[in-house]
Amino acid sequence: MHSRPIRGVVPPVCTPLTPDLEVDHRSLERLVAHLLDGGVDGLFVLGSTSETAYLPDRHRAEVLRTTTAAVAGQVPVLAGAIDMTTLRVLDHVRAAEEAGCDGIVATAPFYTRTHPAEVEHHFRLLAERTELPLYAYDLPVSVHTKLDADLLVRLAGDGVLAGVKDSSGDDAGMRRLLLALRHRGITSCSVLTGSELTVDSALRTGAHGVVPGLANVDPDGYARLFRHCADGRWDAAGTEQERLFDLFGLVEAGDPARIGASSAALGAFKAALHLRGVIDCPVTAPPQLPLTADEVLLVKERLISAGLL
Amino acid sequence: MHSRPIRGVVPPVCTPLTPDLEVDHRSLERLVAHLLDGGVDGLFVLGSTSETAYLPDRHRAEVLRTTTAAVAGQVPVLAGAIDMTTLRVLDHVRAAEEAGCDGIVATAPFYTRTHPAEVEHHFRLLAERTELPLYAYDLPVSVHTKLDADLLVRLAGDGVLAGVKDSSGDDAGMRRLLLALRHRGITSCSVLTGSELTVDSALRTGAHGVVPGLANVDPDGYARLFRHCADGRWDAAGTEQERLFDLFGLVEAGDPARIGASSAALGAFKAALHLRGVIDCPVTAPPQLPLTADEVLLVKERLISAGLL
Amino acid sequence: MHSRPIRGVVPPVCTPLTPDLEVDHRSLERLVAHLLDGGVDGLFVLGSTSETAYLPDRHRAEVLRTTTAAVAGQVPVLAGAIDMTTLRVLDHVRAAEEAGCDGIVATAPFYTRTHPAEVEHHFRLLAERTELPLYAYDLPVSVHTKLDADLLVRLAGDGVLAGVKDSSGDDAGMRRLLLALRHRGITSCSVLTGSELTVDSALRTGAHGVVPGLANVDPDGYARLFRHCADGRWDAAGTEQERLFDLFGLVEAGDPARIGASSAALGAFKAALHLRGVIDCPVTAPPQLPLTADEVLLVKERLISAGLL
Amino acid sequence: MHSRPIRGVVPPVCTPLTPDLEVDHRSLERLVAHLLDGGVDGLFVLGSTSETAYLPDRHRAEVLRTTTAAVAGQVPVLAGAIDMTTLRVLDHVRAAEEAGCDGIVATAPFYTRTHPAEVEHHFRLLAERTELPLYAYDLPVSVHTKLDADLLVRLAGDGVLAGVKDSSGDDAGMRRLLLALRHRGITSCSVLTGSELTVDSALRTGAHGVVPGLANVDPDGYARLFRHCADGRWDAAGTEQERLFDLFGLVEAGDPARIGASSAALGAFKAALHLRGVIDCPVTAPPQLPLTADEVLLVKERLISAGLL
Repeated sequence: MHSRPIRGVVPPVCTPLTPDLEVDHRSLERLVAHLLDGGVDGLFVLGSTSETAYLPDRHRAEVLRTTTAAVAGQVPVLAGAIDMTTLRVLDHVRAAEEAGCDGIVATAPFYTRTHPAEVEHHFRLLAERTELPLYAYDLPVSVHTKLDADLLVRLAGDGVLAGVKDSSGDDAGMRRLLLALRHRGITSCSVLTGSELTVDSALRTGAHGVVPGLANVDPDGYARLFRHCADGRWDAAGTEQERLFDLFGLVEAGDPARIGASSAALGAFKAALHLRGVIDCPVTAPPQLPLTADEVLLVKERLISAGLL
Repeated sequence: MHSRPIRGVVPPVCTPLTPDLEVDHRSLERLVAHLLDGGVDGLFVLGSTSETAYLPDRHRAEVLRTTTAAVAGQVPVLAGAIDMTTLRVLDHVRAAEEAGCDGIVATAPFYTRTHPAEVEHHFRLLAERTELPLYAYDLPVSVHTKLDADLLVRLAGDGVLAGVKDSSGDDAGMRRLLLALRHRGITSCSVLTGSELTVDSALRTGAHGVVPGLANVDPDGYARLFRHCADGRWDAAGTEQERLFDLFGLVEAGDPARIGASSAALGAFKAALHLRGVIDCPVTAPPQLPLTADEVLLVKERLISAGLL
Repeated sequence: MHSRPIRGVVPPVCTPLTPDLEVDHRSLERLVAHLLDGGVDGLFVLGSTSETAYLPDRHRAEVLRTTTAAVAGQVPVLAGAIDMTTLRVLDHVRAAEEAGCDGIVATAPFYTRTHPAEVEHHFRLLAERTELPLYAYDLPVSVHTKLDADLLVRLAGDGVLAGVKDSSGDDAGMRRLLLALRHRGITSCSVLTGSELTVDSALRTGAHGVVPGLANVDPDGYARLFRHCADGRWDAAGTEQERLFDLFGLVEAGDPARIGASSAALGAFKAALHLRGVIDCPVTAPPQLPLTADEVLLVKERLISAGLL
Repeated sequence: MHSRPIRGVVPPVCTPLTPDLEVDHRSLERLVAHLLDGGVDGLFVLGSTSETAYLPDRHRAEVLRTTTAAVAGQVPVLAGAIDMTTLRVLDHVRAAEEAGCDGIVATAPFYTRTHPAEVEHHFRLLAERTELPLYAYDLPVSVHTKLDADLLVRLAGDGVLAGVKDSSGDDAGMRRLLLALRHRGITSCSVLTGSELTVDSALRTGAHGVVPGLANVDPDGYARLFRHCADGRWDAAGTEQERLFDLFGLVEAGDPARIGASSAALGAFKAALHLRGVIDCPVTAPPQLPLTADEVLLVKERLISAGLL
């Protein structure tokens, strides 16, 4: 089933935690069920939305095992293998293989100062050492490197990459990648946008799928949006996208004078999941700071206006 | 012995690897002996120069154990606990404690988008959860955050920090920190410069020590430089510093059109250690690319002009 | 005619120069005619594509006068008033008023370190001191500041801004701006994308117009693309956009190992206009370096495949 | 007199303005006298501290004329020719020549995306077109390009540059430049640090002079500091530098949550000059926001503790 390029809505799954910062397995199972019920086409665990940067390896392994067990093969599960360089990433690849995941998502090296030729070497080494499909994760806001379209096309053409998750926000660059893949006749590479906000445009220009953090909160909305696009109902898609755009405003509940952008976005997603009864506890991992009660009220108002409460 | 603020030359120790990328324990022991013989005052393992960003956790643990065993208490051993956020860093803190290290060096969170208040929360949480002295590592080129002098003074005044390793290259900022600590009467905080190239200036303005990667290659030179400064022989210090400045040119052997800055610097240090007979194999961890034979010749020429071969 | 928000294709007009770096007025008149014949809806002079950063004030004034004379009121002419801060920008505003231009395009302050409150003060001061409609130019690649959507909505709502030229490449951000304007019922603000490559997506999501440098080379193509979008022929629009995407490849003719991105893009536009017989001389202003003969051949090939030669 | 490399204290002169934002010539003359009385060795007008980015060309020309008239050849006057690219800079060079200045200070191009080869071309073109000594101004915080030491040495060796004003804050880089000039036997190039805070270190490592904005407020202090260094009284130099370090705290009077870094620094310098009776009006050019009365009180307190009021 999973040998074809992945398509559709592939939410990056939040990681529910207990108040003492352990993985909350019951809540994670409920979240997986909530997403599958919403009609999603795959799951991406241990990405930014999963707080992967905040989770010790033990937590990461538990997330992989609980998710693959809960999914039980209904949809593919992609696993982030997020670490600084090749050998460290490969340790996470091993953990994902052992947990039975269906694909690996990895960034360029970070923390170090890496030449483009070394970024290419990195992805080639990763692909050599796993049988799983490999997706390149383009996230310059975290990695401080933008993946070059020519590099991605070359790696896709050589069978190194099965896909790209583009969270760069550079829609013209993603379209360039899509056109270059088409011009070279490469059909084995899925391009997934990480944007919550330009899904209809991305799909219209040929993207294969979407990995929106906000789909944790409203998987049905993104599933509807994807089907509208797949069926060519572009006006309905635009309307649905704009509704989700407004809902996305919940990430602005947290005061940027007080907490960081990660705290604000992940705190709001978890607050919304908690308010919707999907997870037991909205806590995020340190050093993130929590939303205040007033900020949670703002999240609640957004859910109510979106008809989700 | 180690309860006083650390002072002097504290080299960040290279991590010798075997051709199949295992830790080369014999070479590491020889390197430790080479550094102690050179007259250094402490060692810093698992920092940038140690390729810590490239080492799997198993390798990191082996480096800690072999180093502390080889040092056997002769000088303090500081251990880098380099990871993205608090809980992950704490796993490395545990490993350093188990290996018997004498202090922890940690950066601000990276990969995530973190508010200054969260950076402060991060360091306070780390200090709460270890008995070891905690050093803040200011390395904006990797972490993409500059540690604010006011924050550092506050944390030092509260006993959270035992020191700061300043690899920011901002000498005016480091001096501001030194003056602020002095104005507030805080004597428990060691400020160590990570610069190879402005050691005499840094010590003249009050820095307590120096953590130069180049001291792997020439520990005697840095020990001499430190003693000149400690004894007020500033002209001799300047001459020694300028000699080391020229030697530092070996990091330019690698062609920046072909390899990254990490590959060039770490590759040159290891080539020099190999040429000097200290380590068996100059290999660096992937995805770093090796120096060419011609580039190694350039390193050799630098060693010869510096009288080190 | 020009009191309504501007809409449609508004090319940023190249500035033809003579071999001795004077404004080539005959070529500029031919270029204006070429654009008007192509069916464009307005002109933007003294923007990045006009080499405004390279033109002395005397050249800028000549460009304004020749363009407004050649246009003779057929379409609105917007003038860039590009300089570091308020008083300097106002000198350029005066020159544009004297030349009879129909609107002013200005960036946030650059070169200086400016607080968001000062950016707002800057735009308010500019609007107070001219009767002409004021457009904010969002160009972080040059200005190193991103204009905040909330600021733009506030300024549009207060009548300070008549529009925004968004060259940030942040399509989600532009959509956020469009939705916020709509939610607040602000209809007096034109949002123009500076992208050559996502015109169909931008117009589909509500943008009012497009300012593509490439329209110098192929104004008919962009006019067709705009009409397809205006008439809801989205598939035809997508096909036209993809054709223009391929044509845009001419900006890659210049070797990035040898010349800068400005030289490559502006050199290619001017080479194409020269090859098409619109301007007499393809020279760009110093310190830009020219395309080589081989690179000009690559531009020629792109024009031939696009059916423009 | 001025053919020798410039040495000593060369303050970047503030530009006093009237309440209606005209150049205040009487105050400027008093400021020049205040600086000359303080024992400075040259003046630098139309740099960042002069608000050159905020001054229209008419104001710039007036500043040049009033300053050269007031100085009357007592010390060399360097003039900033600050603009985006070559031809625009050359217009400012002409104005400086006409006003009788003794040297030109120019940055790399900004606002545009410029290749290193084009930066070199820029400086070579400037030097070809003026008889005046040319100084390269390295100010990455404004220009967003760092001038490469190898480039500077090459240009100095070819007689293109008479000096470098290094405001990069990269003291190790400045020392590398100084050593490289010495190794190549180039004695015609003055290296001036733009730092207020590491003057003693810079001079000790071979810098020829210093261009501290704070010298507007306390020229005597910097003159003393320079003489201490020139005479080898390094401890006295360190003490004087630390006193000036504390005085420099006045740039923190302005609240960074409310105003930009330029407003805070330039506002504080002008407030201090006003409090000391040197200039009539502390106003800064828009869009800078003024210090509050409470913030001016903080400046006053700094002056009192420094014994300057």
